[in-house]
Formats: sequence, structure tokens, C-alpha cells
Amino acid sequence: MARRGRNGCCNVLHLNEDNSRFLLLALVLIGYMMFGALLFHLLEKEAEERARQKYLNCLKKFRQKYLNIINETDLIELLYEYGNATANGVISGTDRWDLPGSFYFVATVVSTIGFGMTTPKSISGRMIVIIYGFLGCSGGILFFNLFLERIITLLAYIMRRYHERKIKRDNQRRDSLYNNRRESCVSVDDRLDMNWKPSVYWVMLVLATFTVLIAVSASAVYSVVEKWSYFDCIYFCFVAFSTIGFGDLVTSQKNSGLDPCNSYIYRIVNFVFIALGCCCIYSLFNVTSIVIKQFLNLLIKKLNFRCKCWRKHKAPVLTQVARSRRNALTPNHLRSYAHSGHKTVKVSVAADSSDVDSTYDSDSERRNSNEMICMKDVIKTNKVSLAILQKELYESAQRSRCYRSPAILLPSKTTTDDFNTGTVGPLAIVSKKLGEEND
Amino acid sequence: MARRGRNGCCNVLHLNEDNSRFLLLALVLIGYMMFGALLFHLLEKEAEERARQKYLNCLKKFRQKYLNIINETDLIELLYEYGNATANGVISGTDRWDLPGSFYFVATVVSTIGFGMTTPKSISGRMIVIIYGFLGCSGGILFFNLFLERIITLLAYIMRRYHERKIKRDNQRRDSLYNNRRESCVSVDDRLDMNWKPSVYWVMLVLATFTVLIAVSASAVYSVVEKWSYFDCIYFCFVAFSTIGFGDLVTSQKNSGLDPCNSYIYRIVNFVFIALGCCCIYSLFNVTSIVIKQFLNLLIKKLNFRCKCWRKHKAPVLTQVARSRRNALTPNHLRSYAHSGHKTVKVSVAADSSDVDSTYDSDSERRNSNEMICMKDVIKTNKVSLAILQKELYESAQRSRCYRSPAILLPSKTTTDDFNTGTVGPLAIVSKKLGEEND
Repeated sequence: MARRGRNGCCNVLHLNEDNSRFLLLALVLIGYMMFGALLFHLLEKEAEERARQKYLNCLKKFRQKYLNIINETDLIELLYEYGNATANGVISGTDRWDLPGSFYFVATVVSTIGFGMTTPKSISGRMIVIIYGFLGCSGGILFFNLFLERIITLLAYIMRRYHERKIKRDNQRRDSLYNNRRESCVSVDDRLDMNWKPSVYWVMLVLATFTVLIAVSASAVYSVVEKWSYFDCIYFCFVAFSTIGFGDLVTSQKNSGLDPCNSYIYRIVNFVFIALGCCCIYSLFNVTSIVIKQFLNLLIKKLNFRCKCWRKHKAPVLTQVARSRRNALTPNHLRSYAHSGHKTVKVSVAADSSDVDSTYDSDSERRNSNEMICMKDVIKTNKVSLAILQKELYESAQRSRCYRSPAILLPSKTTTDDFNTGTVGPLAIVSKKLGEEND
Repeated sequence: MARRGRNGCCNVLHLNEDNSRFLLLALVLIGYMMFGALLFHLLEKEAEERARQKYLNCLKKFRQKYLNIINETDLIELLYEYGNATANGVISGTDRWDLPGSFYFVATVVSTIGFGMTTPKSISGRMIVIIYGFLGCSGGILFFNLFLERIITLLAYIMRRYHERKIKRDNQRRDSLYNNRRESCVSVDDRLDMNWKPSVYWVMLVLATFTVLIAVSASAVYSVVEKWSYFDCIYFCFVAFSTIGFGDLVTSQKNSGLDPCNSYIYRIVNFVFIALGCCCIYSLFNVTSIVIKQFLNLLIKKLNFRCKCWRKHKAPVLTQVARSRRNALTPNHLRSYAHSGHKTVKVSVAADSSDVDSTYDSDSERRNSNEMICMKDVIKTNKVSLAILQKELYESAQRSRCYRSPAILLPSKTTTDDFNTGTVGPLAIVSKKLGEEND
């Protein structure tokens, strides 16, 4: 990635890459919203006019029919009260603030869906919403983030397993052909372990499939119980799962004709569907946002946004050193994949350490001394390489923890368990940068 | 933290700590929601009943007055149409699907606020909301996460600067007292650089102050223009900023009596307030969720949730080794802060590398060789320590990047710029675990 240019817009504006990406996203979002505004204006303007005309016609007809009979103020008062009653949801006949209804309300607060089918009217109620919502929403965000972390870990694990098995099969086939089993097997395995990560697009596809499956099955239930059209149910699912929650369609508000027992079951099923859907779509949005970030990076590149990521006078020298020393980090039987783009730098140090484990008695001595000489060399020559080494070591440790054999898995578990959960979600920013007390 | 016990509930259920924390949070949230349901049921039940009675009384009065004059079906039809018109927002007189109104609608989709004052009625409109919202919400989440990352970085930087200045002042005072300037200054500085992070609670306080300031000034504007009570404005601010968006109170919906020019300015001010408020409260929620996570960890500890984080038969041996070797990582002039609790393990390796820089010619040879011997030792004896070393090296690199002198700052910038943005937000999970293409 072009990050060291000196003529880019970022440099002119004295922005580093993070700030320029943030501003660019703001601009792109505003453009996207303007486009959306135009789109929905064209789509919905007519329907709005139709709805207004329909109501006005009805009112006109009513007035003409009862001209001079009905006092106008009486009518307006009735309509006003009716409007209030509709807004408060007291027309439907079913209680909205009974215990299950209150639970539904609270769930829409915690998840930030906020349908608004029931809202507190009293001052005390509104005050408590603020206090209750503050804690509840924080808990809800934590829940979504922990779910995201769990599901991504699971998906990455499964995909990597599948990939490794495929590679192993390929290797065995090739080895039996070339009859050179031992050597090729080790080197190819090492290379793949180090480099392979599941693609964002695959994970996106899997999450999208989950979400669609949940929406489709939820809609099947809703369309029967709520008597909405199937498409409306899909629309409701999207609006609810994404926590937008317009409130134009809300489940469990009408008397659906279910007997009390089934009604309770329906409420629970509804809750489970919405909770699952919210978690899945939250994960999906986050994975999609990575793709959007890539698009932004591409845009920055295209717009010649060359960023002032370090000070001009030192940069070229340091890069040179970093580049030239990088090869010294790994003995020649290990491969160094130094990729200076958006992908992180990958060097197979963990592969080495696991190799050490499996072939400990035979040649670990040589390897270790080899590695030591390199490190010493690096540190003596320039600290730049130490920074690279630090990152590489850490990354390989991270990766090895996920799919290595137990012998390697266990020791890293020992020390990196907190680390694992702490570097995940928006929590990452906070827990990395801030001290955590009380623990 | 007790993570190696063998009699805890986690072990019985075969859960690791991450999973048990996730499940515990789910349980706590459900408990919290049940409590909330009861609370709001008690608070709002009466108001609901009152609202219903008020409407029914009005209807009864109207019916009694016009008994035998008005055809009941006509009245019901009128009320039904009126209800629809209210729901569609066509009563207020102002267009809701004009361009600014559409923009407002789209902004509530992208931010997932979803007031629902305007919702698409046509099938095509609803279909497009799904497609448009999918991209828009992803972009919105990315925006919030990038904002979170920016604000936390800024706050941590400012707080660290302030703290360092304070420490330096203290040191100078003490040094002038003890007349032993050079030595004590270096050691104390190093120790603080390595260990000090701004407290979660301070950042929470600062963010809460920001949010309250925005809400207070926004409410001052709203209470004048919308003619709501000041408290209602505060309530609206909370509901909008937290992206709950009930829609019981929505700005810019009535004809406020502003002239067209002021009306546009008001819309823009409204947009800026809501955007800023959403970003701030999102950050606040995320920081608060860290505190909730700490509470959960405490709860796990209290409940004797001793987790099966590694396999039983190897665990004790490995810990022993890890413990006994840990001291070997750093020569005795560097301090090792091995903290096995929720705080991450901190060893001052970066301090060493910066020391090497400042005193390079004099004694770097000795230090490097010292370090090398230790590392070699460690790797030879057990890989456990390598995992610890990896983490320590990485952490010190991360920390040194934030506030070290340029000489140290630049090299790490070289390699960890992607890393920095990639390890932040929920993006962290995804970009760490998944391969990113197209870059």
C-alpha cells in the first residue's frame, strides 16, 4: 500500500491514514444517504399523497353526510383522543404493559431495537428508561460482541480444519506420486499453516446463510400467527434483526386468537428468533464492514491519498533497514512471508517452535542457536527489526493457539486467554488502551 | 484469577472461560430484563389504563351525544382511516417524504435508530430498505467503530501525556532532594511507561461528560423549537443517541413555525447533534461494557467457576515451568511484572530496547548477549516460555508505539499501522481471524 508518498492529499491536510479513512467514510456515508434520500423520496412520495387523499376523502364524506348535525369541536376532540389512544397502543384490546408485554418492551430497549409499540408516558418511567437503558444497552452491546467473537472463532476454526484436511489429502496424493514423502509434507504444511486464513467473503456467506435461514423460518411462523403477507414478515425480520425497529409492524401486539398456553410459547419463540437474528445480523454487519473498509482503502489509494504515517526525514532509511533485515529473522529452512500491504506480516516462527517440539531431541539445538544468532544480529543492528520480530512472534503465537496440536495449544492457552478475549470487539480498543481495575 | 481449578462448574459443564462468560452474560441479561419488565409493568400499567379510560370516556360521550344520528359503521370507518393516517404521519400537515424528510428517514436506517415516523409502505420500498439497509447499517457500524477507535486513542494519549508530565515533575522534585538524578529518573520512568494505562473509569467519566454536554445543549435547542418540556428533550436525546429510537417523540415532524431558511439550519443542527450523540454514547456503552465484563469475571470467580482452560493432565507441569522460567526472560536490571489476573502480563522488554537505543554504544553488547542467553535458555527448556515471550514482546511493542520518542515510534509505525487499525473494534475479530483480499 502506498503509504509513504509525499504528495498525497493526506499530507496536504496533515492527516494520518486512520483519520483520513474515518473522514472518507463519513463523506461516503453522507453521499450514500443522499442517494438513499432521493431514492425513497421518489418511491414513497406518491404513496404518502395517496394515504393523505384517502383520509381526507373519508373525512369529507363523513362531514358532508353529517353536515350541521355534528359539532366540529366534538369530532376533532374524538379524533385527537383516538390518535393518542392509537399511539399508546390501547386500541388493540390486549394489554401492552402486562408482564410479558413489559418484558418485550425491555428487550427492545436492551437490544436497542426500540419498536416503540409501548413507550413510557410518565416522567418517572422515562427517567428510569434512561438509567435502566444505560446499563441494559451496555450489556446488550457486550452480549453482541461476545457472540461475534464466539461465532467468528468457531467459523474460522471449522474452515481452517476443513482446509487443512484438504491440503493434507493433496499432499499425500502428491507425495505418493513423487515418492519423496517426508520433506515435501513438512514444508507445504508449514507454509499453509502460517498463511492461510479463511476468506472474509466465505465467512460473510456463511453468516448471511444463517441469517436468511433464521429470517425464513421466523417469517413462516409470523405469517401464520400474525396473518401478515410472507414478504411483510421478511421485512419485519430485517427491521427487527438489524435493531432498526421502525415499529410499523410489531409481533405479539394483536390478539392473535391463540389460546393462552400457545400464546406464551409464541412469545418465547418470537424472543428466541429475534435474539438469534440480532446476533447473526450484527456479526454479518461487522464482517461486511471489513469489506467496506477494504473498499475505503482502495479508494484512498485511488484518490492518491498518500498518508503521512511517519516523519519524512527518517522514513526511507528505516524502511530500508527493516526490509533488508527481515530475512535475517528466520533461518533458511523457514520461509518468511513479508507482505507490506493490508495483510499482516507473516513469518513462520510458530512453525519453528512446533517443529522444535516434534523433533526436539534431534536438531533443536541447531535451530535454536540459529534463531538466536539472527535475533542478536537484528537487535544489534537496528531496533526496527525488533518491532517486526515482536509482531511476527505475536502473530504466530496467536495463530498457533488456534489449530496447533495440544502440545503447542496448551502453553499458549496458559498465558493468552485473557488476551484472546481482550483483543476482541470494540472491547479491544478499550481494554488495550485502558487499565482495567478490580480484577 | 483462578483458572486452573478442577472442581469448578465450568469444568463440570466442559466450558472454557470464554463460553462460560458468554453464557453467564446471557443469564444476567435475562435476569436484568425480568427485573426491568416487573419495574415497567408496575410503573406504566396504571398510565395505560388511564389512557384507555380517557379515550373510552370520550367515545362514550360522543356516542351519547349523537345517539341515533350517526351511523356506527361510518364512525368506525372514519376512526380507522384517521388511525392509519396518524400512523403514516400524514396528519401533521408537513410532508414527511420530501427530500429532507427522506434523508432523515435514511439516516435513521443507517444509524439503526429507526424512529418509524416514516416507513415505506410499498413493496418495492420495503424491498429496497432491506438491500439499502444492509449496506447502510454495515457502513454505520464501521463509522461508529472507527469513531470509537479515534476517540479512545485520543483520550488515552491525552491522559498518558498528563500523567507522564505529573510523574516527571514528581521525579524532578525527588531527584533534587536526593541529588541522585540520573539513575532514579530512568528507572522510575521506565516502570511507569510500561505499566501505566488510563483507567476505564476516567475514560468513562470523560465520555459521559461529553455525552451529557451534547444532550444538554441539544435539549436546549429542541425545547425551544419543538416546544417539548426540557425533560422530554433529554429523554428524546437518550432514546435517539442510544439508537433505540422509539418514535414517540421525533424532532422535525411538526410545522415548528420556523421560516424555511431557519428550518433547514435546524435540520442540519439536529442531524449533527444526533450523529455526535450516537457516536459518543456508542463509545460510552462500549467502555461501560468493559466494566460489565470485569463484573462478570468477578462473578465467575465468586461462583467458583473454575474453568477448564487446558487439559488436566498437562496443566500443572506446564504452569510450573512457565512460572519458574518467567524470571529468566529479563536480565535482573529489568523488571518483570507478571500478573496472572485479568491484566495482561507485562514485561519491560520494550524498555530494554529503548534503553539499547539511548545507551547503544556503551553497554548494548552486554545487554543483548544477556537477553539472548535468556531466550535461548527459555526456548531450549520449554516452549511455554516462548509463548509468554511472544506475548510480552508484542505487548511492549504495542505500548511503545503509543508514546515513545520518535526514534522508537517510527519503526513500529512502519510495520504495525495496519495492525493498529485492524485490531480495533469488532473488526479486530474479523480481520485477525480472516484473510483480507483485494488489498
